[in-house]
Amino acid sequence: MSDDSADLMGLCKRRGFIYPAFEIYGGVAGMFDYGPLGCILKNNIVEAWRHIYKGREGFIEIDSETVNPKDVFKASGHIDNFADLITYCTECQAPFRADHLVKGFVDNPDILTPKQLEEEFEKHDIRCLECGGKLGPVDEFNLMFKTHIGPGSARVGYMRPETAQGIFVNYPNLYRYNRERLPLGVIQTGRSYRNEIAPRQGMIRMREFNQMEVELFVDPDDKDWARFPEIENESLDLIPNTTLKLTTMTVKEAVEKGVIANRVLAYFVYTTKQLLTMLGIDPKRLRFREHEKDEMAHYAADCWEAEVLLSYGWTEIVGIADRGCWDLSRHSQFSGQDLTHFKKFDEPKEVEMDKVKAKNKALGPRFKAKAKDVAAAIEACKPEDVKDGKLSVTVDGETYDLDGECFEVVHVKEKISGERVIPHVIEPSHGLDRIFYSILEHAYDHDEKEDYTVLHLRPIVAPIKVGVFPLMEKDGLDKVAKDIYDAIHRSGAEAYYDGSGTIGKRYARMDEIGTPWCITVDYETIEDGANKGTVTIRDRDSKDQKRIKVEDAKAIIDSLLAGKDFKDL
Amino acid sequence: MSDDSADLMGLCKRRGFIYPAFEIYGGVAGMFDYGPLGCILKNNIVEAWRHIYKGREGFIEIDSETVNPKDVFKASGHIDNFADLITYCTECQAPFRADHLVKGFVDNPDILTPKQLEEEFEKHDIRCLECGGKLGPVDEFNLMFKTHIGPGSARVGYMRPETAQGIFVNYPNLYRYNRERLPLGVIQTGRSYRNEIAPRQGMIRMREFNQMEVELFVDPDDKDWARFPEIENESLDLIPNTTLKLTTMTVKEAVEKGVIANRVLAYFVYTTKQLLTMLGIDPKRLRFREHEKDEMAHYAADCWEAEVLLSYGWTEIVGIADRGCWDLSRHSQFSGQDLTHFKKFDEPKEVEMDKVKAKNKALGPRFKAKAKDVAAAIEACKPEDVKDGKLSVTVDGETYDLDGECFEVVHVKEKISGERVIPHVIEPSHGLDRIFYSILEHAYDHDEKEDYTVLHLRPIVAPIKVGVFPLMEKDGLDKVAKDIYDAIHRSGAEAYYDGSGTIGKRYARMDEIGTPWCITVDYETIEDGANKGTVTIRDRDSKDQKRIKVEDAKAIIDSLLAGKDFKDL
Repeated sequence: MSDDSADLMGLCKRRGFIYPAFEIYGGVAGMFDYGPLGCILKNNIVEAWRHIYKGREGFIEIDSETVNPKDVFKASGHIDNFADLITYCTECQAPFRADHLVKGFVDNPDILTPKQLEEEFEKHDIRCLECGGKLGPVDEFNLMFKTHIGPGSARVGYMRPETAQGIFVNYPNLYRYNRERLPLGVIQTGRSYRNEIAPRQGMIRMREFNQMEVELFVDPDDKDWARFPEIENESLDLIPNTTLKLTTMTVKEAVEKGVIANRVLAYFVYTTKQLLTMLGIDPKRLRFREHEKDEMAHYAADCWEAEVLLSYGWTEIVGIADRGCWDLSRHSQFSGQDLTHFKKFDEPKEVEMDKVKAKNKALGPRFKAKAKDVAAAIEACKPEDVKDGKLSVTVDGETYDLDGECFEVVHVKEKISGERVIPHVIEPSHGLDRIFYSILEHAYDHDEKEDYTVLHLRPIVAPIKVGVFPLMEKDGLDKVAKDIYDAIHRSGAEAYYDGSGTIGKRYARMDEIGTPWCITVDYETIEDGANKGTVTIRDRDSKDQKRIKVEDAKAIIDSLLAGKDFKDL
Repeated sequence: MSDDSADLMGLCKRRGFIYPAFEIYGGVAGMFDYGPLGCILKNNIVEAWRHIYKGREGFIEIDSETVNPKDVFKASGHIDNFADLITYCTECQAPFRADHLVKGFVDNPDILTPKQLEEEFEKHDIRCLECGGKLGPVDEFNLMFKTHIGPGSARVGYMRPETAQGIFVNYPNLYRYNRERLPLGVIQTGRSYRNEIAPRQGMIRMREFNQMEVELFVDPDDKDWARFPEIENESLDLIPNTTLKLTTMTVKEAVEKGVIANRVLAYFVYTTKQLLTMLGIDPKRLRFREHEKDEMAHYAADCWEAEVLLSYGWTEIVGIADRGCWDLSRHSQFSGQDLTHFKKFDEPKEVEMDKVKAKNKALGPRFKAKAKDVAAAIEACKPEDVKDGKLSVTVDGETYDLDGECFEVVHVKEKISGERVIPHVIEPSHGLDRIFYSILEHAYDHDEKEDYTVLHLRPIVAPIKVGVFPLMEKDGLDKVAKDIYDAIHRSGAEAYYDGSGTIGKRYARMDEIGTPWCITVDYETIEDGANKGTVTIRDRDSKDQKRIKVEDAKAIIDSLLAGKDFKDL
């Protein structure tokens, strides 16, 4: 952890943004709790994300289970592939991520095999970071938290490693909700879990973390987006995997030059920039990097990462990928369910084609109660699925290899009104905790000489919108201040009443947590004179002060929150 | 499941409120996903709860980890006591909750011991519900989902069974945030987990569920609440554990007659009624039942349940308890940390007293690096903790039995400015999913003869506030309707655009999901005449219709949401 990050995390703990979890029991690495201010700031981020995806784009939101049965992650690939390489010290048994140990010796340590990593340990005499002991063999460690559902240990379950799967497995329900139309945009926010081997990077690597994921199901032949023209001339800082060089271009250029694969993906890369900068990420410390070929999942058509510059270096906080038909294909294959979209032709077509037909007479005796399901599975196959006269189908998780007795390929002429296609998925996936932390780092402003800290949080995310102070807690000043606090706080804009210490100290406390405005009730407020019935309002960033009427306070805070400039009050 | 409940759950699935989870993989009992409408309705409930507890009462909110290390639940008692009694069929191995099997034969099956349950099986010849086989022995089954944190199986973790513990273990941080003052009110909403043996009651018994918990830390000697006089004359339907009879009385009477233990507890019993009725729970189907003596936790000073009448019978949906000092005492004892409140006297007092003093000279050689912690633990003890000249202290989870060589009891005269007390906890704990389901049942209105369903959801919880329809999707009517939809939906009040089917069908679809108002754009809207530029707005419950101006649509929906009567439009 860098000094800046340590200072910021100190502030976070002291002022109630983030607490190391289970501190009274000694803590657990990679686990944090959101304190009172952090909880509001986090919720404000979620609301801004909802405002764009639900409000503007009209997507729907779901909230699905975090404990999932094994089947889900067998299909998603997480059981086989969601692993880091681990090594234990042969002496003190401390566990380490093997690839992290060879950083500095090798360029791309995360693509090395276990054997290559062991060779690097040998070559550079890399030893245990705790006790200097010899490191043991390198092995795979699956990063899902494992548990059991119900009594006994028969039914294995896992804590979800991403919220996305809850959307994919609900595709039939959500497609029906959307009245069987595409595009279908679905969002979900909530906890995901990654049982890190030895997390050491604060909020960047958490074992329990929060995501905001968007899964947009589109017609594979229509990767356009109706609102694209509205943003096509906006600019993006891109690092394409062809050049690995930072290039600035418009969204439109990026698509036309083939830098970003298609218009819908490019639209959501730009949407990500909109969201992040609206939340207060510094655009000069934000760039989009395309996954290199060996980084990209084999099924992904294209994948971009929003990277921000932090004290940890350039760090991924959002991924925006075109995942092709991978997710729905896999779940369809493993569940045997139809996860397609029926694409109607403008006019019915008469087509000649080869079709796989089940021989029901042969299936009955052989498969009994399952014959109907097997027949359906057979007829869902295409002629090209037949290999060497054989066909392999999966029903209820069991795979059957069938020969020509069970099916035949026939040539037919049919009138068809449309075709079934597996939708492609565009996925903007947001690391909520990383966004949270990045907003704080980009807002953090510490004056060494004055030893004075200001968090320049945007009003939209600031956990407290206004501090309300009586100059003294007597003579009725406190009553006026409490009434102002109540009027604002009960209306839903978070306010904080503070009656103790000098006004300077109280401003400093509010500046340190990023409160954009403070209201002070003083003797002029209650004494006869030109300022009777008025209070001072102070702006955090300009330090300007104005006098406003007590009865206007709530309306003025509302107008500032709606975007009015303090200068124009 | 009753017929009513089955019909309602059918609607929930068909219309996108609730989906059985993992349906494409055959489902998992006791697990449900919130669909698009359910997700909004659930969030609306949370917002109403926040409005009361954060807005009105000024409590703070946190969001803590769901995976917890073992220490937490050792202290909380969940490892030892959070269990149901289980029996397996000796033939088919199906698991059952043993107490559920003897319902109907015994009055209070949940207080029977394993041995007594086995005797009841014998006596009434109770057999396996699946295959009729003989039931095996009755045993305890811990209901926490167990997992491991980090690599290896050394560090056991559990999914939290309640959100409350995350608040208790953060007490030192939260107390500091509150500037070391009481009362300290903290709220948390999120997932909790209960690995049910064989859940069979829909949303009433979920393995993964959602809570909204409130932990209010108060001075043990001050169980009053400043806002009590505002509600003291309101009435409550109570079933005290002394009479077991339903009695209606005012909040004030309930406290004065000793029915509810104290004013702060009574205040939050009434707050619960406020919240539930505001959300649409029928007050005639709501009562508060006091825990019977053998039901109440031994440490609880008093405990009340909000029960609502559902098709399942009277069902607990909120618990409101005075938990005394139990939670903080236990965590203090197990963590060795100070979890007290320093209560300042008005004037310093000179007092004579006995104190336990550590003999540091003896501790040094014996405890080495730990000597300081042991000394602190000794001096945290009271003279009455010394038993037979011995003292038992716990440091870092280890317990030491110490004799007179390590400590002494001395008589001293001291000026003290205050004293340390362990705060008591008042806990209103809300079952969010149960509240969600109860709202739907109380809103559900099915006309058998017409086969027509209306959900009479209050506007505050209704997932869609307004349906917007063009009479036909042509001649520009759709454009006007889409603009109205956009203006309302983007402003944050959920709208639904529907252009297909007859207007009657579209009204029916909106009635079935509880949409309070619908707006229809027709030819009068665009044609010259008295109604040009106006649209029809229809009220769900009265079926009344009025014409309003297109440009007023958003403002009118806002005013209706703020509580304006449709009649007064």
